[in-house]
Amino acid sequence: MPVSIDEVGVVKVDSEDIDEQPRPRARELGLIIGVVPPGNLNAITDVPDVRVGQTTVAWGEGALRPGHGPARTGVTVVLPHGGNLFREKVPAAIHVLNGFGKCMGIEQVEELGTIESPIALTSTLCVGRVADALVTHGIRDNPEIGITTSTVNPVVGECSDAFLNDIQGRHVREEHVLAAIDAASGGTVEEGSVGAGMGMIAFGFKGGIGTASRVIAPPVGGWTVGILVLANFGLPHQLVIDGVPVGRDLVRRHHHPPERGSIMIIVATDAPLFDHGLRRMARRAGFGLARTGSMSGHGSGDIVIAFSSAPAVRIPHAAGGLTLPLEVVAEQGPPGSARAIDALFAATIEATEEAIVNALLRATTVVGRDGNVGRALPLEPVWQILNAAGRIRRP
Amino acid sequence: MPVSIDEVGVVKVDSEDIDEQPRPRARELGLIIGVVPPGNLNAITDVPDVRVGQTTVAWGEGALRPGHGPARTGVTVVLPHGGNLFREKVPAAIHVLNGFGKCMGIEQVEELGTIESPIALTSTLCVGRVADALVTHGIRDNPEIGITTSTVNPVVGECSDAFLNDIQGRHVREEHVLAAIDAASGGTVEEGSVGAGMGMIAFGFKGGIGTASRVIAPPVGGWTVGILVLANFGLPHQLVIDGVPVGRDLVRRHHHPPERGSIMIIVATDAPLFDHGLRRMARRAGFGLARTGSMSGHGSGDIVIAFSSAPAVRIPHAAGGLTLPLEVVAEQGPPGSARAIDALFAATIEATEEAIVNALLRATTVVGRDGNVGRALPLEPVWQILNAAGRIRRP
Amino acid sequence: MPVSIDEVGVVKVDSEDIDEQPRPRARELGLIIGVVPPGNLNAITDVPDVRVGQTTVAWGEGALRPGHGPARTGVTVVLPHGGNLFREKVPAAIHVLNGFGKCMGIEQVEELGTIESPIALTSTLCVGRVADALVTHGIRDNPEIGITTSTVNPVVGECSDAFLNDIQGRHVREEHVLAAIDAASGGTVEEGSVGAGMGMIAFGFKGGIGTASRVIAPPVGGWTVGILVLANFGLPHQLVIDGVPVGRDLVRRHHHPPERGSIMIIVATDAPLFDHGLRRMARRAGFGLARTGSMSGHGSGDIVIAFSSAPAVRIPHAAGGLTLPLEVVAEQGPPGSARAIDALFAATIEATEEAIVNALLRATTVVGRDGNVGRALPLEPVWQILNAAGRIRRP
Amino acid sequence: MPVSIDEVGVVKVDSEDIDEQPRPRARELGLIIGVVPPGNLNAITDVPDVRVGQTTVAWGEGALRPGHGPARTGVTVVLPHGGNLFREKVPAAIHVLNGFGKCMGIEQVEELGTIESPIALTSTLCVGRVADALVTHGIRDNPEIGITTSTVNPVVGECSDAFLNDIQGRHVREEHVLAAIDAASGGTVEEGSVGAGMGMIAFGFKGGIGTASRVIAPPVGGWTVGILVLANFGLPHQLVIDGVPVGRDLVRRHHHPPERGSIMIIVATDAPLFDHGLRRMARRAGFGLARTGSMSGHGSGDIVIAFSSAPAVRIPHAAGGLTLPLEVVAEQGPPGSARAIDALFAATIEATEEAIVNALLRATTVVGRDGNVGRALPLEPVWQILNAAGRIRRP
Repeated sequence: MPVSIDEVGVVKVDSEDIDEQPRPRARELGLIIGVVPPGNLNAITDVPDVRVGQTTVAWGEGALRPGHGPARTGVTVVLPHGGNLFREKVPAAIHVLNGFGKCMGIEQVEELGTIESPIALTSTLCVGRVADALVTHGIRDNPEIGITTSTVNPVVGECSDAFLNDIQGRHVREEHVLAAIDAASGGTVEEGSVGAGMGMIAFGFKGGIGTASRVIAPPVGGWTVGILVLANFGLPHQLVIDGVPVGRDLVRRHHHPPERGSIMIIVATDAPLFDHGLRRMARRAGFGLARTGSMSGHGSGDIVIAFSSAPAVRIPHAAGGLTLPLEVVAEQGPPGSARAIDALFAATIEATEEAIVNALLRATTVVGRDGNVGRALPLEPVWQILNAAGRIRRP
Repeated sequence: MPVSIDEVGVVKVDSEDIDEQPRPRARELGLIIGVVPPGNLNAITDVPDVRVGQTTVAWGEGALRPGHGPARTGVTVVLPHGGNLFREKVPAAIHVLNGFGKCMGIEQVEELGTIESPIALTSTLCVGRVADALVTHGIRDNPEIGITTSTVNPVVGECSDAFLNDIQGRHVREEHVLAAIDAASGGTVEEGSVGAGMGMIAFGFKGGIGTASRVIAPPVGGWTVGILVLANFGLPHQLVIDGVPVGRDLVRRHHHPPERGSIMIIVATDAPLFDHGLRRMARRAGFGLARTGSMSGHGSGDIVIAFSSAPAVRIPHAAGGLTLPLEVVAEQGPPGSARAIDALFAATIEATEEAIVNALLRATTVVGRDGNVGRALPLEPVWQILNAAGRIRRP
Repeated sequence: MPVSIDEVGVVKVDSEDIDEQPRPRARELGLIIGVVPPGNLNAITDVPDVRVGQTTVAWGEGALRPGHGPARTGVTVVLPHGGNLFREKVPAAIHVLNGFGKCMGIEQVEELGTIESPIALTSTLCVGRVADALVTHGIRDNPEIGITTSTVNPVVGECSDAFLNDIQGRHVREEHVLAAIDAASGGTVEEGSVGAGMGMIAFGFKGGIGTASRVIAPPVGGWTVGILVLANFGLPHQLVIDGVPVGRDLVRRHHHPPERGSIMIIVATDAPLFDHGLRRMARRAGFGLARTGSMSGHGSGDIVIAFSSAPAVRIPHAAGGLTLPLEVVAEQGPPGSARAIDALFAATIEATEEAIVNALLRATTVVGRDGNVGRALPLEPVWQILNAAGRIRRP
Repeated sequence: MPVSIDEVGVVKVDSEDIDEQPRPRARELGLIIGVVPPGNLNAITDVPDVRVGQTTVAWGEGALRPGHGPARTGVTVVLPHGGNLFREKVPAAIHVLNGFGKCMGIEQVEELGTIESPIALTSTLCVGRVADALVTHGIRDNPEIGITTSTVNPVVGECSDAFLNDIQGRHVREEHVLAAIDAASGGTVEEGSVGAGMGMIAFGFKGGIGTASRVIAPPVGGWTVGILVLANFGLPHQLVIDGVPVGRDLVRRHHHPPERGSIMIIVATDAPLFDHGLRRMARRAGFGLARTGSMSGHGSGDIVIAFSSAPAVRIPHAAGGLTLPLEVVAEQGPPGSARAIDALFAATIEATEEAIVNALLRATTVVGRDGNVGRALPLEPVWQILNAAGRIRRP
């Protein structure tokens, strides 16, 4: 399959060339990344009570009319649990790998070590509108916000879908965000060109939403780590899948345009951890990212948001007493506890790597503004390269 | 003058008791804070090319109808220079003293060390809408944003005006932000209950916008440091003015409700500094804040944004070559340069302290939602306390 | 009393002019800093189980012979509890106000949130030797270190005593450190020109060790906060005592040499806090520092080390299970818990301010190398200035 | 070749089984990591004026007598340039990937953005002594230190060689450090079980010193990036070489002891960068580390020290004027400059990965205390695994 790369490093195809065949996840392709077993769904929703909702905003065709479409964008929300997040906050930490990004809500998460709203991912220029919609949502469920109690801290991450989308139009509106929150559920998570992932590009191919999970062994806690990524980074020649330099083999090219992408990584776990341990897990997500070939380019906003959904560490908005009894993973103290935290690190790294690969494998081709095409990763040559390297376990 | 403090630590007065006499700045009162001389206007606009614009949003009276007023809010913008900020970025740094806040834009400033938009201050729940308006402004002046070049990073700080304002209504709209930017100018800066300061409370009295400046001596560079604050923090008994525990003497009370306020501090200078030196200056703003009696309470989002407007260190959006020639303050290297950076530190501390005092002195009484009153600091007893302590230079 | 200031901003007196009258602490002078009451001793040792030990190293006179004296130096150690610190670690956090310093051990404290050795303060160039002595001490009590278990992380802070001491000689030896640890005890803490404080200068006068404490009210927890400082910073004209610009009134001068000092601040509490809450307390120590007139000069290494000695949050070196049950201060959750953390902040700020003032008041004149004199703060004029400002409660 | 792994994850062999065949570097084995070409020596010394010196301390045999040997340790120093480092400081930055380590000197590097001493790597418990030796060296060359000018900030990194070495004995003495500095030179760098690398273990095999370099293309600046690592981390099954899970294939095992290792990474470049850009490069070293299979385990102190040796950005100790003219890489500003910084990132990642592989390939078997054996990575099976995966370019 001939693949050419244009000036800005994005694959161009004729629109009739778009195939819509069913696309496999990594394990369906025979690719077993890492050694820790995944959860039932191999998704962030394997972490008990975590929910995902997505609204895709896609309409219009043809030439870009700034502010008027075409729209190839959306919003993806992750709910740390199914209750009232403002009244039952979850421990959380954020790690900024490369801060060329326009997120919102990070400072309060860092100061207090908690998240109190849904986490929303969206298009770069929509952050203001999506944050505003999260405020609306917070007030809807907690009418006392800003009147008899404190205000709410919306957490929003973003990547730029400018190659396919009329990004100036900021087409994600309040109703889209509220719909995503209201529809959020456990169970299977749609991947690829969906929600915030609709307009994203990764390694020059179509990117977007990906997810994966790991369950660590009972002797080290038996906890689950779930990852959801919004993948929108990397140049074609950088792509590495399970250690194999697929991108280098797939496309031979000489021109290296600067990367303009980003990745948002959400780490969820039911291990009872505070911000201290979650920050350490968040840092390890970068190790999974590195294994996919990312070099966290200058222009890439790479941010990791980690939280624990464990009921034992939730922080009530209005605590009764002066102290709070908590039971947290003992990070220090050999031998058992160091093994537990190391197992959580390994799970984070493996699931991050697999979630990114899933985003690439599952994303379908999208034709966007000005006829720009975000081409799905070609499955056949990728499979052949991986198989030749001995990385495919079963065909 | 009898002053009583209610349950939430805010001064209550009968509305007929509101006086609207002209209110002095610190130096007009005879209060000389520090030893470094101020600039001509004793304002952030003493820093060459820095501009300030403000829109006050105030309408309605009586009982709070959430979402429908009364409005006691606004927006204040600081423009680091009068040109196109996106194409000529300024070096910048942000220091978070206490991160219980909902700002936007911090990560990119930290990663790249530059600001590329107006800096907007507003009401907590309006951050999303104001950020969105800054995007509109960025696109208006740079139609290539997100199409042929990167996206824009809006920088927004906030404090909560919930005591006086219908904060859920988010009454600061795009037109208010654009009007403030378009009207921004050098010259005198309005202080007190104006712009973002309209609904703010500090030390239980009416707070809001304050400004001050310092000019360091020619042998250490002769540069100007200008400060603008949005003061919305502190409990009555904590107030210290020029070292005198005015608050303790002013109001005798036993009940200590938790602080819910915040302060945003903007530090401007024409000293040629990069993010490295600016971050160090930003940290010293906290020393000026401390001298006013702040304890940076748990609930206070205290954030400092520092930038240099020096033309010699501006970063063009599309630099021509691989390297950039720059001339920056030599922070190391005794004796001269350490004295320069120390002089900039002293200027930052003094001007921050004075800007906060100016905010309190200049703010007029505001009656807000539910008849809540943000009472102006009573001038007569304050003057008497300061004079008794020997702090008044001339009456 | 005529006081002159030499080229490097240090007070010069004839040696016969040295008075050795008994010197009061702040409260003995009638100075009541802040509103929170102190503990019994008004010392860091009011925090249950905290111990302090000091070895002063002072010998020789006359001209400096680099490496051969005279010695005006020492070491001060703070033990977070009286047991085996390696096997029972304490939660801890470090905040760097200005990092122009040569400490050791900070990274591990930040990563793990615990301290596992005595905290030692000493002369800048002695850090290596003192750290090595702490390793010897750790091995002495825990012969398994580095053989069957991990290594030990010595924590050492420093200030430069170069004005009075043959600093190149590094005269603090292993035996001095071990003696300080072995003699460490609760009870009264010697202040001023003792231990690591022997050769220190603050605000141009003799500085050194100071301490103070605060006990917060029972409804907000009733916990104790204890501070110990090694004060070696500031220029004469910057000195502020309880809000009064004593230094400005005391010495009229025009020459501003760059500051070369530093301050180490140790914050101890029996409030059950993890590194998260301790880091927030450590930041507030800077607010107390600011109130003494510090501007955290370029050349000043200003570092805060905070720990909790509460038995409920100690971390056993070899934890039994995967999780650890803990009861910590609920930082969030109005109304009670926010008040608790705010009370701890206020206590930290007040006790830091008072500990610095105690260091200055208690330090006796020291004549050092080359006849350099670190002159004790003149009590009479200071008392007069404070009294005139109405800050002295009883004469 | 049969390989077994003992309880603590370290390969055990009979001592007669030790082979001393010449050991290749990665490229000699036919392994081409990455796409950017290396410099002439493929070593950190390809960066102009950078020098390396090493002293190996190895004596004694048999049972450990704590404090009395056997010694399997040493010190490796990197000199950013050949002149007087105290008088001509270099821009520098440090990134802590996992702070479970006992380094010294980090705070001042972070505050000032410069390094003013040789960078020394050594055994964990020797940090104090090595820091003290660096002070001696600083004074030797700059007798004014601490007398007429400021003190010196020694920078020391460490890993634990406790498995092979009598670590409690702290056998690296001042003379060893001074000898390494005095012998430091450009040219070929000895790798493996040498200097600080003598007693180190990586992925269960013998680790130690490794180096590599990259030269970026002239259109993006033509600068060199050199890496030197002290590799002492990882478990056998985690080892990945050029994307191939060599460790997993090499040793099949079920027992996962906690990692106790660490890695120190030194990044040198002649690109004119300040601490801002160097910090961003330092972060990318973690991406190279991740590609070798590291998960930055709880017990691993993983620290990156980056500096620029470019004469154009050196900071004189006593700068003449208030400002300093500098010419730095324009990190922002498409298209050229973003490509330059991205090229430096890619070079850092690739060279870090290759330096670690070189450390493993070049390290020879070392028998240490108690007959513990740090076994060299078996070349034959590794070559076969890599060749089967298609990673060997020429045999």
